[in-house]
Parts: sequence; C-alpha cells; structure tokens
Amino acid sequence: MTTPSLRPGGRSARVQESIHAAVRELLEEQDRSSVTVPQIAARAGVTPSTIYRRWGDLSALLADVALARMQPETGSANTGSLSGDIRAWAEQYLDEMSSAPGRNMLLDVQSSLKQSYCATIIGGQMQIILDRYPDEPNPGIDRLINLVAAPIVFRILYSEAPLEVEELHRLIDIALSQ
Amino acid sequence: MTTPSLRPGGRSARVQESIHAAVRELLEEQDRSSVTVPQIAARAGVTPSTIYRRWGDLSALLADVALARMQPETGSANTGSLSGDIRAWAEQYLDEMSSAPGRNMLLDVQSSLKQSYCATIIGGQMQIILDRYPDEPNPGIDRLINLVAAPIVFRILYSEAPLEVEELHRLIDIALSQ
Repeated sequence: MTTPSLRPGGRSARVQESIHAAVRELLEEQDRSSVTVPQIAARAGVTPSTIYRRWGDLSALLADVALARMQPETGSANTGSLSGDIRAWAEQYLDEMSSAPGRNMLLDVQSSLKQSYCATIIGGQMQIILDRYPDEPNPGIDRLINLVAAPIVFRILYSEAPLEVEELHRLIDIALSQ
Repeated sequence: MTTPSLRPGGRSARVQESIHAAVRELLEEQDRSSVTVPQIAARAGVTPSTIYRRWGDLSALLADVALARMQPETGSANTGSLSGDIRAWAEQYLDEMSSAPGRNMLLDVQSSLKQSYCATIIGGQMQIILDRYPDEPNPGIDRLINLVAAPIVFRILYSEAPLEVEELHRLIDIALSQ
C-alpha cells in the first residue's frame, strides 16, 4: 500500500487541476447558478464523490477556484516608479474585479473559510512592489489595502458603479503621500 | 373591490413589518442557514405564499431585512466637531458590522438587487453630518465612503481581523485633511 501522493504535480494535484479547469470552463459557458457538481465531475473525468470528499460542497469548491484565480498569473508591471507600479496593479485589479466573473469571484470567496486569504494575496502583491523601491517612503501594506483595494472592492459590491479611475489615482496619491 | 393599501401603516405595511420582525427574531434564535420560509410565515402569522409572492425567495427577503436594518435607528451623534461626528459614526459602524449579525447583513444584502443602496444609505448619513458643519472643508461623500466605510467593510469580509480603531482614526484624519 502506498499513501496518496501530495507532491505538486502528483496525482492528487493533477485531479485538483482538472476539477478547477472544469469549473473555470463551465463558468465561462453558463450561468453560475446552473453549474452542478455532477456536471463538473463529468467534465473533469472524476466521480461526484471525489468532489464531495475533497471540498464538501459546491460553494466550497467555487470558493477554492475563485481564490486560485485571484493569484496573479504574471508579476505586476514594473514601470520604474512606485506610484506607477501601484497604479498599474490597481487599474488591472479594478478592471478584472468589476467584470462579471470578477464580481462572482468576490462573492464565491466569501463562502470559503479562507476568505481572509484575499487580503493576504493582495498584501503579497503590494510587498513585491514595495520591495522594488527600498529608498521611497513606504506607506505600508495595510495602508495600501485600505486606501486602494478596499474602495475598489466596496464599490463593486455595494454601490451603483465601480470606482472611477481618476478617484483611484487620487487615492493612490493620498496613500503614497502619508 | 378595493386595491391593496400601500400607504405607510396600511395593511400591506403591517404585513411586511410582521414578516421582517419574524425574520429578525428567528435570526437571533437560530443559525441563519436553518431559517426557512415556512418558519418565518408561521411566526409572522401569514402563509408561505404571501412571502413567495412578495419576495420571490428567502434570499431576497433576507436581503430586504438586512437593508432595512442598515438604516440607522437614531440620528448619528452630534459631538460638536466634524471629525468627532465622523469618528462616532465610524466607530459604531465598525462595531455593528464586525459582529456576527452585522457580517451576515453584509452578505445577505449582496443577494438583493438593491445592494447598491448600501452606499446610498451610508452616503445619506455622511451628508447629514457634513450639513452640520457648512464652514468646515468638505471632503465629499464619496471620499468619506472610500476612506472610511470601504476599509471597514473590506476588512470584515476579506481579512483576518476587523480594522483597528487607531487605523480608523488615521483614515478619518486623512479623509478630512485632503
């Protein structure tokens, strides 16, 4: 008897990746409320019980996929200045999150016990940018999250329209001038 | 035949208030996930079809109740200074929303088509405070929402811990000094 492989790229990781891919595909093809576990299982080539055993229910799986998608695929743009890098990051984040799939990601993640990873993921991205400019005044990760990421997300979830890019730029200037 | 009364305090308003009250009571007594429409109907003394006809489904009713609870019951504290009034409002908002019922309200409202009323409700409260101090520099409602309300809500939904009161005070100072 062997224990299940948990190494990255091992069988377990490949099953997970095929399930995540199935969810991403189905979410592009149809409305989120109509996606079911048996559909995902069929697309991923696994049994529904594999999904239930690993995630418990559909909302936990959707949350897991949403969190994975919040990890940036590429490093953030290196524009040569701290404010330029933060602007580039924030404009892309605003753009992605205010789309319908982005908004659904924000909602899906809330069903997860890991919803606090959102701030951790954003904080990690901010830290990478801050580390590029050790000689510039450092507003701190929390300040950047509060002044830049929070208004983007709040406006998407709870107001009529997403944050305007002009106001986003002003908020970044405020964050960097403190 | 008469048309249903829609005047405030009329039959329709009284039915709605008894259903809202039933929801509020049940949410205090038991976990939100176990509350059902028949339970609410029994408590309110109406039939389940009354609820389905008016709200469509449970999540729309929960959203409606949550929105109604976000309307402040009393006017915000008048401390004699703009920053004092904003602090008083923000500390109470932080306190209420970071509680378990507050967090559930934030989640419930998202199921509503009226989730953008959140920003409207907060904006109305900010305006009342700003109107008290016509001679002080006015940061604008949007700036106050972005710098004060948004970080409170973002931290509750997507980070490990609620916003610290010290940081809340600093954010208010920043908002008022722009």
